[in-house]
Amino acid sequence: MSDPIKYVLDESRIPKNWYNIMADFPTPPAPPLHPGTGQPVGPEALEPIFPKVLIQQEMSGERWIEIPKPVREVYKQWRPSPLYRARRLERALDTPARIYYKYEGVSPSGSHKPNTAVPQAYYNAEAGIKRISTETGAGQWGSSLAFAGALFGIEIRVFMVRISFEQKPYRKALMQAFGATCVASPSEETEIGRKMRELYPGTTGSLGIAISEAMEVAAKDPGTNYSLGSVLNHVCLHQTVVGLEAIEQFELANDYPDIVIACAGGGSNFAGLAFPFLGAQLRGGKKVRVIAVEPAACPSLTKGKFAYDFGDTGQFTPLLKMFTLGSSFVPPGFHAGGLRYHAMSPLVSHAQSLGLTEAKAYHQTACFEAGVQFARTEGIMPAPEATHAIRCAIDEALRCKQEGTSQAIVFNLSGHGHFDMSAYTDYFEGKLVDVAYDAEGIRKSLDKLPHVA
Amino acid sequence: MSDPIKYVLDESRIPKNWYNIMADFPTPPAPPLHPGTGQPVGPEALEPIFPKVLIQQEMSGERWIEIPKPVREVYKQWRPSPLYRARRLERALDTPARIYYKYEGVSPSGSHKPNTAVPQAYYNAEAGIKRISTETGAGQWGSSLAFAGALFGIEIRVFMVRISFEQKPYRKALMQAFGATCVASPSEETEIGRKMRELYPGTTGSLGIAISEAMEVAAKDPGTNYSLGSVLNHVCLHQTVVGLEAIEQFELANDYPDIVIACAGGGSNFAGLAFPFLGAQLRGGKKVRVIAVEPAACPSLTKGKFAYDFGDTGQFTPLLKMFTLGSSFVPPGFHAGGLRYHAMSPLVSHAQSLGLTEAKAYHQTACFEAGVQFARTEGIMPAPEATHAIRCAIDEALRCKQEGTSQAIVFNLSGHGHFDMSAYTDYFEGKLVDVAYDAEGIRKSLDKLPHVA
Repeated sequence: MSDPIKYVLDESRIPKNWYNIMADFPTPPAPPLHPGTGQPVGPEALEPIFPKVLIQQEMSGERWIEIPKPVREVYKQWRPSPLYRARRLERALDTPARIYYKYEGVSPSGSHKPNTAVPQAYYNAEAGIKRISTETGAGQWGSSLAFAGALFGIEIRVFMVRISFEQKPYRKALMQAFGATCVASPSEETEIGRKMRELYPGTTGSLGIAISEAMEVAAKDPGTNYSLGSVLNHVCLHQTVVGLEAIEQFELANDYPDIVIACAGGGSNFAGLAFPFLGAQLRGGKKVRVIAVEPAACPSLTKGKFAYDFGDTGQFTPLLKMFTLGSSFVPPGFHAGGLRYHAMSPLVSHAQSLGLTEAKAYHQTACFEAGVQFARTEGIMPAPEATHAIRCAIDEALRCKQEGTSQAIVFNLSGHGHFDMSAYTDYFEGKLVDVAYDAEGIRKSLDKLPHVA
Repeated sequence: MSDPIKYVLDESRIPKNWYNIMADFPTPPAPPLHPGTGQPVGPEALEPIFPKVLIQQEMSGERWIEIPKPVREVYKQWRPSPLYRARRLERALDTPARIYYKYEGVSPSGSHKPNTAVPQAYYNAEAGIKRISTETGAGQWGSSLAFAGALFGIEIRVFMVRISFEQKPYRKALMQAFGATCVASPSEETEIGRKMRELYPGTTGSLGIAISEAMEVAAKDPGTNYSLGSVLNHVCLHQTVVGLEAIEQFELANDYPDIVIACAGGGSNFAGLAFPFLGAQLRGGKKVRVIAVEPAACPSLTKGKFAYDFGDTGQFTPLLKMFTLGSSFVPPGFHAGGLRYHAMSPLVSHAQSLGLTEAKAYHQTACFEAGVQFARTEGIMPAPEATHAIRCAIDEALRCKQEGTSQAIVFNLSGHGHFDMSAYTDYFEGKLVDVAYDAEGIRKSLDKLPHVA
């Protein structure tokens, strides 16, 4: 038929390698530092909590890293994910722009997260690990690791940011269905959790705190490893299957994007779509505008400082050079729980510092409005996180309309919103407020950034 | 790669025609009768509530009925749906059986229902209709029609069975997101609703009551049509895209089913997968075992009577020859809301009466157990309705293991359970009870079957 609206590839076209942007950056990113010595950390510092293969990937400069066959076998369940042409949205906007979206909601947990949960569980199982502790924001990551753990026989314990734990009981049920245990964070189970509950009674929690809790559990038990769903280099690496497939699908569509858009919390969803396109550009391919979209209430890229900081509130991690709001900043409770992180992945931050990417921040009501328009035209309920990318894509398409230019826009529809419908109910009932940007809180938090010589 | 686990077709392979089993039945089913005269009803009797094209399809004997191009355009959003080989479930069961499932959860509302919602909305829009009222059980149908209404500019009003309305608030939010209005049934908005609330205070509602409410609204307002999500011939017809695609996908797999399984509430999901295989058999193809699976608490095929009955509790419909528990039977409140209907589609009932199909009934805890085993191996959370098919497929696969035979089993995974997680929570917390088969209620209800000369 003419006018195709989706580009599907069969499972033989799942990428055989992940793409590592480290190989193509014009200058290397700053290394992680030990907070005590101020010296670069070696692989041995990470061995208590990560399997060796993941540490190698974290530090690798190789451009292509092979995806193990058992991981590709599991990917077959939902990969290659479809690339859609949003023809009905285009008509509704009456725009000459060509809008595409890569849909990661077809995965077992309904988001891009299993792309890295599966290899992380696999490598841990290969290393003989029986238990993993982790954190989750909106619950996407926790349910993804729960699924991966079930496949590879690993027991999963998830610390879920309290506000999401309360707003999204179905996510907890999904983790349970996949066989994992889920606890609200801050909890009574860890020292840092108890400390945060004492310092901030009634706190809604944050990814920073939940990470600290999960790391504490892993550090104290030699049989337990830790697993992170975003931020780190190896996580961004695993997500590049998204962009690599998209490049192949654009060939099918006989098109190529002018603009690449993704929401960014910890940064791995953004990296997954954007890095393969950026890499192609860095190796002499077509220049694309690449836009990271973040919530106005947690604006690490647009209002943060590019500095060394801890990845967690408990300050257990090495120091990472990132755009950050300060590791003591607790973001307000808005609905895109997956974007409530105080900082941005070092690789994404490096790309931003080099001027390779742009960043935009949106308030949540504008995002939900875009999400509903998208649902009514395209028939897919987007996750609150993904509505940030939709808002930006619609705005770019409307700009194209004003300017009379037909550009190709692709965004990552990182997940569906089936577990987030209470947020839509709040929106419909007019209960959703735009949480103000907490300038004072951020300033105070940035004042406490660690000193690095 | 060897061992494919999913068979995908591109959108050019969406069927061009629906399949009408009427053309291949060895004897025709009994006609619908007017309850007053006892004579067959003509098309004009249905014109106040249905567009003419749908009435023609309801009565057609043509084997192939063309799918309009605008409907196929919308189908492209999620069709052809994938056919999966459940290799991980097979390994977990250690069975020589080859288990396949057709996955309809990829649709906008997460079930097979949009397959008929879209053509129904399209034909109504073509006929100039601006408003449709309908009922919904678990909410799958209501959200599907809401989506289709949004695409074709039709206002949708949904009467949702009260127990599901309360158990599944997210389904209501989804309907709202697609722009529809949703009311708990029985409601105060209709005469029959008010009557049922008076007769049965605190009733959990039923599909039969909700159908009556929606029909009453359509009958009283000339600008409003009615739309049904199952039972009727044209609904079963539209669902046959499922089985037609599956037949093509089995060619890709170089296999063919020995056993075809689907859950059956009103019957359209079952018809959608089963009729194309049954039709092939009736035209001289391979004989297949075809099994309809129903809830033990609402067992129309296994405990009902094959007789003329009303399709709704308010007794507004023509009399249909069906396996029925009596139109005054109000099923108990169990979690598979889409299977809480007192009777079975006339076409499915006819096939059963001819001995072309088998029927099995299961209690819900056994089904949820199968659903969780499926989720942990295959990575998809099934809807409570679909767990009935999974239970049966697993039991057949275990029989194959006992007998040492390798049969091919296909079932319809009619939808995902993302909006049904509270049911899984009840299951995990041990709160789920097996609702007993209400023999006395069914006997009383059957005593009230209409008398047909």
